[in-house]
Formats: sequence, structure tokens, C-alpha cells
Amino acid sequence: RPRILVANDDGIFSPGIKALAQAMSTFADVTVSAPDVEQSAVGHGITIRRPLRFKHTASAGFGDIPAYRVDGTPADCVVLGVHLTGQPDLVVSGINLGPNLGDDLTHSGTVAAAIEGMSLGIPAIAFSQQATPAGEYDFAPGAAYAARLAQEVLTRGLPPRTLLNVNFPALPPRGVRVTRVGEHRWEDRIVTRHDPEGREYHWVAGTSTAPDAHDEGTDYGAVDAGLISVTPVRIDLTARDLLGELAGYVPQL
Amino acid sequence: RPRILVANDDGIFSPGIKALAQAMSTFADVTVSAPDVEQSAVGHGITIRRPLRFKHTASAGFGDIPAYRVDGTPADCVVLGVHLTGQPDLVVSGINLGPNLGDDLTHSGTVAAAIEGMSLGIPAIAFSQQATPAGEYDFAPGAAYAARLAQEVLTRGLPPRTLLNVNFPALPPRGVRVTRVGEHRWEDRIVTRHDPEGREYHWVAGTSTAPDAHDEGTDYGAVDAGLISVTPVRIDLTARDLLGELAGYVPQL
Amino acid sequence: RPRILVANDDGIFSPGIKALAQAMSTFADVTVSAPDVEQSAVGHGITIRRPLRFKHTASAGFGDIPAYRVDGTPADCVVLGVHLTGQPDLVVSGINLGPNLGDDLTHSGTVAAAIEGMSLGIPAIAFSQQATPAGEYDFAPGAAYAARLAQEVLTRGLPPRTLLNVNFPALPPRGVRVTRVGEHRWEDRIVTRHDPEGREYHWVAGTSTAPDAHDEGTDYGAVDAGLISVTPVRIDLTARDLLGELAGYVPQL
Amino acid sequence: RPRILVANDDGIFSPGIKALAQAMSTFADVTVSAPDVEQSAVGHGITIRRPLRFKHTASAGFGDIPAYRVDGTPADCVVLGVHLTGQPDLVVSGINLGPNLGDDLTHSGTVAAAIEGMSLGIPAIAFSQQATPAGEYDFAPGAAYAARLAQEVLTRGLPPRTLLNVNFPALPPRGVRVTRVGEHRWEDRIVTRHDPEGREYHWVAGTSTAPDAHDEGTDYGAVDAGLISVTPVRIDLTARDLLGELAGYVPQL
Repeated sequence: RPRILVANDDGIFSPGIKALAQAMSTFADVTVSAPDVEQSAVGHGITIRRPLRFKHTASAGFGDIPAYRVDGTPADCVVLGVHLTGQPDLVVSGINLGPNLGDDLTHSGTVAAAIEGMSLGIPAIAFSQQATPAGEYDFAPGAAYAARLAQEVLTRGLPPRTLLNVNFPALPPRGVRVTRVGEHRWEDRIVTRHDPEGREYHWVAGTSTAPDAHDEGTDYGAVDAGLISVTPVRIDLTARDLLGELAGYVPQL
Repeated sequence: RPRILVANDDGIFSPGIKALAQAMSTFADVTVSAPDVEQSAVGHGITIRRPLRFKHTASAGFGDIPAYRVDGTPADCVVLGVHLTGQPDLVVSGINLGPNLGDDLTHSGTVAAAIEGMSLGIPAIAFSQQATPAGEYDFAPGAAYAARLAQEVLTRGLPPRTLLNVNFPALPPRGVRVTRVGEHRWEDRIVTRHDPEGREYHWVAGTSTAPDAHDEGTDYGAVDAGLISVTPVRIDLTARDLLGELAGYVPQL
Repeated sequence: RPRILVANDDGIFSPGIKALAQAMSTFADVTVSAPDVEQSAVGHGITIRRPLRFKHTASAGFGDIPAYRVDGTPADCVVLGVHLTGQPDLVVSGINLGPNLGDDLTHSGTVAAAIEGMSLGIPAIAFSQQATPAGEYDFAPGAAYAARLAQEVLTRGLPPRTLLNVNFPALPPRGVRVTRVGEHRWEDRIVTRHDPEGREYHWVAGTSTAPDAHDEGTDYGAVDAGLISVTPVRIDLTARDLLGELAGYVPQL
Repeated sequence: RPRILVANDDGIFSPGIKALAQAMSTFADVTVSAPDVEQSAVGHGITIRRPLRFKHTASAGFGDIPAYRVDGTPADCVVLGVHLTGQPDLVVSGINLGPNLGDDLTHSGTVAAAIEGMSLGIPAIAFSQQATPAGEYDFAPGAAYAARLAQEVLTRGLPPRTLLNVNFPALPPRGVRVTRVGEHRWEDRIVTRHDPEGREYHWVAGTSTAPDAHDEGTDYGAVDAGLISVTPVRIDLTARDLLGELAGYVPQL
């Protein structure tokens, strides 16, 4: 059986990681490594300034699946999980309470855990679940799909520096769509009001004005249309085409 | 005179943002919009679930420069600053206490502020300062260089979806280097010890084993060599070459 | 049936609050109001600078017990729970992952929720569970005892400005002890070491030197001896005997 | 010259601690030990689960006053400051941005630092500054008064388990008042609104209904009346008069 490491951002007591770990355990040997519920992951990087705890925990409700709590970030959980329990064949992260779409990918702890797996040379998938308008989460359809997709990725692998970012719609999915990262943005409108003491406050509000927000070919558009969105993500942030031009004009000392 | 919005991640009372705002004010009309010192920016995205305060603050020591405190994230500071004080010609972020290099870019609040400016269609630069081995920061050389670079960018602009990420070395810089984002990683070694109560803890430790860590063409390598690193960053996370292949094998419902 | 509001500090997905709510529901009408798992309660006070969400949540696993998530502090959860779902006969908080003993009471979120109930004129009890040396929690014995104690308090009431602070030992309790708040302290010794990069760090360490640390009449001593500790707590912080003397010597303007 | 340790809750770059340290240095040998600006003090207790850094920092603008940054809580700063730089004659904490009044004392980091000094057997004073309605802080009058009060306390000492909690009004003070801890509360009213997306949110609002809120003999009332409030605080949380009665009725196993 393949070996899978399961991490997340919401903490070891989140129902999302429980659903994901249980789905993976139907076909793989699973280890859970997730943040302590009391620990606010300040940032998403690797913690190098202070040491970390890695504690087996039976009380998190994972049954026979070995589960460890880490007093650190999602990325720390992956690093410690890989180094202290053995190299897995796949790293999965989530299922996050709430979607990770568009530019939000760059500050998602769920995606950060997958990036960490990828950096260690292990195929990695991040999973996130949209809430219903009432704020509820049904993880069952997503978890079942996650198990199918994981088996496919275990068979085929992923190219270097690449991970999959998967988002599940709030209601039972109507289908699956391979998507690109959308440019959907929220910040088009500020609504200013006054609190009960008469002091001003501001909502960042408004519906999206981005051209591709309702395009099912984007992650945002697919989830909005009730589809499971599967996005191949590559972390290559350098704008290589600019290197030469920039070298020509940046001030020298 | 051009209009510049200055934001950061460390809070409005950080000496880094003061140095940056003052340097910019030598040639531009500057507005500061930065997180409240008491507010831990939980995450780096736009805050849409709760409203935000945007309070003028005279006590932060910016003299004649208008400065506003926001009880939100670095990205919130940029959104509110742009919408409530008028569209700037440039957004600058920092100077961060500590560098933002390699994969850390994806979870840096300093870079998140620049990304937000970029998303709003405004040229944006993120600035970060390495600490000396003793943990000290000298912002003077970096702030002076930031002013020169900002003027160049105001003149020439930046392509869409692109920003500059600038890191200053701990000691007075020996030169300037245009770089790519390095793949330097820290996580190659775990050192396990026992605390005074006999319980295990773990350091993520070790020197880098990445092939490009000492290459001056990377952000990490340049700063390590005592150079100012200027990296053109493009946020295009989609691995487009995989879209077709993936569509061929992801499980359908 | 009496009405009981259940809050906590660790978040709505913590197993401790589930055990407590279920135990209370055997004899009372229970409502759960607890922090959102994603929200780090920055501080323990009432949030007056920003508004709060109060969202019914079916996915937290409370079955028929109505459960609400709040994006705020433990005290916020009590205030909103009381005002939005009706005045309860009792407020209970916990079961916290980890004890709340001695001077730690003054910075415990679990106790802060009980203080809030007390301030609203409602009898209140805070419950906390010591971990085993292996870091595990067994909430069953504590939850069963909590139900018995709650019924007693519902019958007899508590004096104004007074709450009960209950701590359960790690292993099945040997008995029950009514205790005073101990003066046990940890900070008697600093252990200085060097990290893998050669930089100094410090552990606050050492066994307690406080005179009453092993006295079963203190909260700390009782739990240490394997007993359930029940401490009556009154929040009256003024050192009234000093008011006159101080008025005699504080500098006037 | 007496030795004074200065700590706070807002971080080493806050203008409040600078004002306080400088005022103390006019008559004492001062050491500053304060939280790192980047570190959100998760909780206010002593950190015993992970080690701490204690780093000299020249860049915080304290001039000749030795200043150390700690990656921990306000209480950690006091413990490390006392153990690593030598026993002071007085611990002062603040000046906090915002008041610490009434029941808020039990969850104030500024007060927690003073409690820590007190627990170590050192006289301790916590200082806090009310903001003007416009959100500004003028620390000058408070800092000057703090120096006078500190000298008085150094001469006369404080009884065991007792500290002073001092709050400065927003505008230049009209006088000084020795006060008791008030029972002022905010939570009497919930204002429910809808956000731009139509979802409900709630403000905890309303003016105080507590009987003593406008009594100048309380900390809240004094500050409200434009006076400096000096409150003697004793941390003795046990409701001793209830110990016997409670022992008579708590359920035994």
C-alpha cells in the first residue's frame, strides 16, 4: 500500500482533516501531522527560529491512523512528518474549511503545506471545501473524490515544482473541471458605515469585476458553477523575460 | 510630484516603514497605511468577513506624512489606502525586518502588500532587510537605494501582473544584482533534543543543500554575497503545460 | 429542564467542548457558542472595536444540540450566546485542553468565558483537563463529573462575582477536593542552550519552589495528587486595605 | 541609582514603551525587555513549552538604554529580563496603547507583565494610556507622572502579592485619584446589522449600565473624568468564605 502524509491548516481537530485522512486510509497507509488546535500558525513558512514539538495524539479521533500534533505552521507539519515518520509517496493537505482560489493561493496555509511536500520532492495535492451560504460544510463528496484523485496521482506522478490545488463546491458537485488560477478580486468597492459609537468602519465589498470570474475555465468560475476545480500549480515566481531589461536600468551603487 | 502609498507587514510603529516613508518623501507625496501594532495579521489576504478601521494616527512619528492605522492585513492596508486616500502612482511595502527570499515569497506579508498593489493595476515594490548576525537592522543604506529604484520604476513602469521584490543585505551593500527567485531550502535536517523536563523537541536545521543557494544569480545568493537583490516577480501560478494532460486523466464523476 | 450555555477557548471543533456539551445535554437544554476554529482569539476580552459573526453550524458534530460559531474571543461567545439565544440558567466553559491553575487563571480564555457569564449575573463554571505525560486527554471521567456538579450548582446557585474553576487530573480521578488558588510558579530557573546555528536560546524551566505546590489544599496540589480540584473564585482585584495609605502618598499634579 | 526593568505588551517598537523607558532613565538604571514586533503574544502566561530568544537590539531607538527583544509574552519578557540581566528594584510595564480598566485587568498583557514582576517578589506597576476620540496618544504627561510615582514606590515598597495599575486619561490629566477596580461593562446591548453581502453581523455596543461606571472612585470613572487613576491590585482569587460551604455539597466520587 502507498504511504500518504496528511496535513492541514485548520488544526488536528478540524472535521476536514478527519474526512480526508479516513478517505485516504481506504487504500493507503496514512499518517496525520497537523497543527495543534491551540497554536495560531503565525505565518506559513518553516519555523527555524524555535524548535517544535511533534506529539502523538490518540484523542483527535483518527482511530487506528497515527496522528501527530505540531506546535507550528502547516509547512512545519509536513517537514516534521516527512523526517520523523518516513518519506511518503504523496502529501495531501486539507480539506480546508473554505476555498483557496485565485490570488488567495499565495497566502493559503493549506497550499503552503502542499508546497512544502513539493519542495521535498513529493507529489502534493491541496484540498479545500467551499461553505454553503448558511456556513455549513459537507466533506463527504469531496473526500470521496480526493481518494480517487490521489490514486491517479500516485500512479502518474507530477512534474517537478508542480502541485495540484483542488476546490470542492459547497453543494454536491455536478462535475469536474481542470482549471487555471483565476484573477477574481474582491476589492472593487469599499462600503463605509458608522458603528454604534459613531466611529467609521469600512467593508471591502462588491462582486467581482475581473474578466474571468465567471469563466468555468478558472478555479473560481468552476467552483461557482458547482464543479470540482483541479488546478495544476507551478511555483516559478521569476519574471524571467524581465531579467535582462531590469539589469539595464536598476540603479547601481 | 508622484504619489506613493507605503504599507508594511510589521506594523506602523516598525522602524523599517519609517525609514522607507521618509526616503520616499524626499521626492514624492507619501501616504502611509499600515497594520495596527496590536493586531496580529492572521493571514495575508483581503479581509472580507469583517469590516476594518482606517484611523489617522499622528503618534506614529511620521511627521508631516499622513499615516493611517488599519486593524487588518498588509493587503487590507493597500486596498483601504488606495480607495480612501486616492490612487497612487506606486505602492511600496516594507522595509521588512528580515529578508523575503526563495519560496518564502509565497507567505510573506510584505510581498502580499505589493501583490495587492499590483492586482489593483499599480506598480509595486516590496523591500526587506536582512538582520546582522547580532540581530540588528540598519535601514539607512536600503532606504536610500529604495528611493532611487522607486524613481526609476515611476519613470519606466512595470508590466502587468509583475512586481519587484528587493532584499538588502545586513551590512552596507557591495553592489546590486538583478536575480531570480532561488530554491534555497532549510529543511534538510532535523535536530532532536530534550527539554529540561525530558520531553523531546525538534529543530529544523542545517545549511542549504539546494544547488543554487550560493549562486549570486538567485535572490538568496546575492544577499548572501552582500549585494542588493532585485527580483522581478510574476504571479502566474498555473502550470499551463499540464492543463491538457491533466484533463485527460483526472477522474470524472 | 434547565438551560445551559456551553462555551470554550479551544474552538468549536475541540473534543473537550463536545464531551462537555453532551454530558450537559443528559439533563438540560444545551446551546453551544464557541470560537471559530480559524480564528485565533487575540486576547480574551469583549470585542467592541469590530462586529462579530454568530453562525449556526451543523458540521461541528453536536447532533441535536444547537451550536454556533463566533469569530471572536471566549467572552464574545458568552455575550452573543446569552443575548442571541436567550438567558441560560448556567454558563459552563471547557473542557479545556490543559489545566488552568494558580496564577494562570488570570490569563485563561476558559476562565474568561466563565467570568463573562458571572458578569452577566449567571452562575458559571470553568472546566479544564490535565494531559497525560504522553500528551493525551481522556474527557470521559471529567465530563461525567461536570454534569453532576452542574446540577448541584443549578440547585444551590453561587454568590455574586463568584465562579467555580474545576480542573480534572490526567488519569481517572481518585477523589474530589475543594481548593484554594495555589501560588505554584515555574520560572525559578532559566536553562540556556545554543541552537544548531550557534545562537543562544533559553528555557524557562525548573520544578516549583512555591511553598504550597504540593499542598492538596491548592488547585495545583490537588490535581498533582490525582484529585478533581474545585476552586471557588471571586474576582475582586482591589487591595482595599491599601486605598487609604496609597491616597496619602501618591504624587498629586 | 535604582534598577528598573521596563516591559510591555505592544512590542519593543511601540512609542509607549519608549516614553516610559526614557522617563525612568532620568533617575534609574533602566533595562528594556519587550516582545518582538513580529511575535503575536499568544496568551499572556509564561512560555514553558518552547524556548525563547533574548536578543539585544540597538535599532529600537532606546539610545543608551540596553534593550532586548523576546519572542514571547509580556510575562516571558519579565522572567528573562530578571534572570538574564539581574534583579531589578522595580518592574514597570507599558505605557499600553489603550486603557486597562475594570474586568479587563484579568486579560491584559500589560498587567500580566506586572503580575510576573510581583510574583518574583519585585514591586511592579502597570501603566496604560487612553486614546483620544480621534485615536491619538500623547504619552508625555503620563510618562512624567510615571517617573514620579515610580520613585515613590521605590522608597515605600508595596505589600506582597500587590501591584499598582495606573491609567492615564486621553487629555492632559486634571488630577490624580486612588481608585478601586470598577465593574463597568460594555455588553448590555447587541446591535445586529447586515453586511454588503446580506449576511448578519453583531456589534457588542451600548453605554455602561453598571452602577459605578461614573463613580470617580473607580478606575473607569476616574479616567472618564480626566483623572490619572492609581489602583492597588491584589491577586487573591480564592473566595475563601465559600470553601467550607462548597466542601459540604460538591459531589464526591
